[in-house]
Amino acid sequence: MVGTKIRVHKKLPKLKDPVFIEGLPGVGNVGRIAAGYLAEQLGAKEFAELFSPHFLPFVLLHQSSAVHVLKNEFYYWNAKKKNQRDLVILIGDSQSIDPVGHYEIVETVLDFLEKLGVKEIITIAGLNVGKLEKEPRVIGAVSDPEVAKKYKKNYGIDFAAGSKVGTIVGASGLFIGLGRYRGMKGLCLLGETSGFPIIPDPRSAEVVLKTLTKILNINIDMSKLRDKVKEMETFMKKIEKVQSRAIRQLLAQQMKKPREGKEEELRYIG
Amino acid sequence: MVGTKIRVHKKLPKLKDPVFIEGLPGVGNVGRIAAGYLAEQLGAKEFAELFSPHFLPFVLLHQSSAVHVLKNEFYYWNAKKKNQRDLVILIGDSQSIDPVGHYEIVETVLDFLEKLGVKEIITIAGLNVGKLEKEPRVIGAVSDPEVAKKYKKNYGIDFAAGSKVGTIVGASGLFIGLGRYRGMKGLCLLGETSGFPIIPDPRSAEVVLKTLTKILNINIDMSKLRDKVKEMETFMKKIEKVQSRAIRQLLAQQMKKPREGKEEELRYIG
Amino acid sequence: MVGTKIRVHKKLPKLKDPVFIEGLPGVGNVGRIAAGYLAEQLGAKEFAELFSPHFLPFVLLHQSSAVHVLKNEFYYWNAKKKNQRDLVILIGDSQSIDPVGHYEIVETVLDFLEKLGVKEIITIAGLNVGKLEKEPRVIGAVSDPEVAKKYKKNYGIDFAAGSKVGTIVGASGLFIGLGRYRGMKGLCLLGETSGFPIIPDPRSAEVVLKTLTKILNINIDMSKLRDKVKEMETFMKKIEKVQSRAIRQLLAQQMKKPREGKEEELRYIG
Amino acid sequence: MVGTKIRVHKKLPKLKDPVFIEGLPGVGNVGRIAAGYLAEQLGAKEFAELFSPHFLPFVLLHQSSAVHVLKNEFYYWNAKKKNQRDLVILIGDSQSIDPVGHYEIVETVLDFLEKLGVKEIITIAGLNVGKLEKEPRVIGAVSDPEVAKKYKKNYGIDFAAGSKVGTIVGASGLFIGLGRYRGMKGLCLLGETSGFPIIPDPRSAEVVLKTLTKILNINIDMSKLRDKVKEMETFMKKIEKVQSRAIRQLLAQQMKKPREGKEEELRYIG
Repeated sequence: MVGTKIRVHKKLPKLKDPVFIEGLPGVGNVGRIAAGYLAEQLGAKEFAELFSPHFLPFVLLHQSSAVHVLKNEFYYWNAKKKNQRDLVILIGDSQSIDPVGHYEIVETVLDFLEKLGVKEIITIAGLNVGKLEKEPRVIGAVSDPEVAKKYKKNYGIDFAAGSKVGTIVGASGLFIGLGRYRGMKGLCLLGETSGFPIIPDPRSAEVVLKTLTKILNINIDMSKLRDKVKEMETFMKKIEKVQSRAIRQLLAQQMKKPREGKEEELRYIG
Repeated sequence: MVGTKIRVHKKLPKLKDPVFIEGLPGVGNVGRIAAGYLAEQLGAKEFAELFSPHFLPFVLLHQSSAVHVLKNEFYYWNAKKKNQRDLVILIGDSQSIDPVGHYEIVETVLDFLEKLGVKEIITIAGLNVGKLEKEPRVIGAVSDPEVAKKYKKNYGIDFAAGSKVGTIVGASGLFIGLGRYRGMKGLCLLGETSGFPIIPDPRSAEVVLKTLTKILNINIDMSKLRDKVKEMETFMKKIEKVQSRAIRQLLAQQMKKPREGKEEELRYIG
Repeated sequence: MVGTKIRVHKKLPKLKDPVFIEGLPGVGNVGRIAAGYLAEQLGAKEFAELFSPHFLPFVLLHQSSAVHVLKNEFYYWNAKKKNQRDLVILIGDSQSIDPVGHYEIVETVLDFLEKLGVKEIITIAGLNVGKLEKEPRVIGAVSDPEVAKKYKKNYGIDFAAGSKVGTIVGASGLFIGLGRYRGMKGLCLLGETSGFPIIPDPRSAEVVLKTLTKILNINIDMSKLRDKVKEMETFMKKIEKVQSRAIRQLLAQQMKKPREGKEEELRYIG
Repeated sequence: MVGTKIRVHKKLPKLKDPVFIEGLPGVGNVGRIAAGYLAEQLGAKEFAELFSPHFLPFVLLHQSSAVHVLKNEFYYWNAKKKNQRDLVILIGDSQSIDPVGHYEIVETVLDFLEKLGVKEIITIAGLNVGKLEKEPRVIGAVSDPEVAKKYKKNYGIDFAAGSKVGTIVGASGLFIGLGRYRGMKGLCLLGETSGFPIIPDPRSAEVVLKTLTKILNINIDMSKLRDKVKEMETFMKKIEKVQSRAIRQLLAQQMKKPREGKEEELRYIG
């Protein structure tokens, strides 16, 4: 049996009380865009990769003809100022394609985060509200009510929206919910979005990223975000197209149909 | 690989020859309502939680914005009178979403119950009879015929209905069937219900609970049951709605479709 | 994680060079009927049970209200005459409900058979030929061509039918194919049948059983076979009905739909 | 739990810095044909077999009535000239029927290849371009851009096609992508094909094989390729037909429907 695993490039970075930021693909790709842009602007360094049999079993081809296995990547960044924190940022190509895999991936990452000394988690996701907002709000979900108290003021996060009981599907919610049992405090920043699951929403990502950088006391240049999102959108459309074809090809391989014109006598044995 | 696991809060409670009561969500939610109301009325204390990758991979949001991972909870209660028994009560949000998970969850719990010294099991489920009954009957199923003998009189349980061979799907039946191989005696109380799988049936729960408390020589105040069920119904409708959306979202993520207007040349590689 | 496992009642029986006979449910239930009738007529003793998470997760209710977990059972019989062999007979309620489970169950049983000193396997299955035969033939499949040589004469087994390349789906074929890698010689007796998968075919079972008993130098009274099959048919129809309902109930639990009349604003988070 | 495993016939062959050639069934069966013909023409010796629970759970029947479990086979060949390399060739009946299995099989094989001292991989697959090509091109994908540099000249491999981002589904891509993390250099030769997934394309296989033998400095007689493919086509059509029936039979066993004429009162318990 093979399972989800994390490969560290050389050795684990030295981090002091780091905050874990998660941004994986999802609704509006809000988390993927925000966390990816943050890692890039900070010059965060990649130090580990996560592979899983719960990702689709295909490779992408780069321009250079080099193949790319579906994976997630861990980046780290050391604080530059006293009011900042060391960071571990997780971004990637995919979440699990099956329900069990979501749990396996999150538990594997939480084991890894414990080794890195992480005690605080901030995850980022999109909240599809079904219609266009003038300015998307940022809605908050937490591991404990005391975390909501900590962030209630100053950041413009709406913690009251939890009253319309919703759910967070996938890693962003499970990190917060399961991280609590590891003694980790968690905050999930949800950016309202009106788009379909896979169309990137740069406005929502921007709003959430502004909130996040304010929380982390980090200044980054937001001006290139829109261009980056445009690049990502082109790339993601291609991935999505080949993913759909890959899924159809996998299904076709599994459910091969006979090609003879005339029906042969059925011979079942079993 | 990650599997079903049980987290004990501090340490295992001291129990003498406890009886295990199982009430998980199912048809009419009869078990969930009855066991949950019993635990609450008795002031039973939560001492362990069960998590499983075979639950749907999403978290619910409470009013307080705190997230809630899908789980089952163990409660314990010490007998107050000579003719009573110590109890371990299991209630929760969900059963397994796939067939293999039902076995994994039940076997994991049975291992745990052996540690707690459990030798007797009573599970509670609904029996959908397809039409409204004036007064729902309680039908019994057992691990061994001698258990039926023990409960045949005095409790109004119908043990003759087994002759119309039926099945019990999920945990309630597997606990009885697999518990026998661990030397545990088991009784399943089935409350006739006419409702659909997820609409709570308070009448059926009440009838079963009366039977159960009689067996256990316990007196509880039944007057608040209907109100509790009303609360639960509102909550369960929300969970059900988000569960359906969550399932659809998971499926949408897995089966992403391309969005281009014009068909591109199909390029399959494999 | 929980897997397929075998529980031995007390201890393993003493067997000398036993032959393993497999008869699990399948097409026409030919194997199940033939092996079950053989075990019963010989007075073979049950000594072990096999449980698997790859069976459907429900229990059946007996007349007595006792529940019955889906399982397979091992019986043994000691030879009474010099030209007979000790036997291990496997019959049961079900085969795996998923592809991986077939391999897991067969490998688990083969490990067990090695412990019992089994070096010869005879499996029994039905071959659906799509139309009624006057007298069903018995067709043979083997682990090695030398096994076909051994049985070519005297038994009326048709070994030439392999030329119309067919398959054997499930345990009956895998036992022969995978058993070879454990040094076991295997023979699969296929009884031609015209029925649908689950309708028992007593004629086919009888023809195969006559061949089998001839091979084993065993005399049993065949006169009660038809009655036994009638009993089995009634029972199997009930099982099949509840199995279908169980499957539908499992699917309904997984894919719950919301019940509100008016459409609510979709709120997806992920 | 049972997993993918490799059985070595006697002992591992002595190989010096071998190149691994993979040719498993897929689009146009280009890899299967090319690698299979190469192994046969070289007189390569089979030394190990791979079995997996992620193959379909049925056996094929040979002319001789011997059963054939679905598997992959490893062949080896020692270099005859100074400019040649020792080879390990993998061919087989099937790839995984589910997504997780693809990863399990590839990782299991990569573990094995590490033991054999493999540091270079060449996989072969078909690229369905949707229309008939006069002369199919060979397109290349690599583990690292430096591998493309090495093969850019002299072989007529088109490495520019990666710019139309495509994917490679299944083993051929995963071997290259995951092999890189084991320090292995990888090249995937993709033969353009216009056929449907399972119809063998001898023209595409021939073009790829010519490129491969040129890379390996091997001379083989290509004249029998077309006849071999015709043989294979007949055989593969039969396998495909029985595979489809096997899949339908598996599904029928899982989703048995009741047969009674009149509807009985629904009795759900759970």
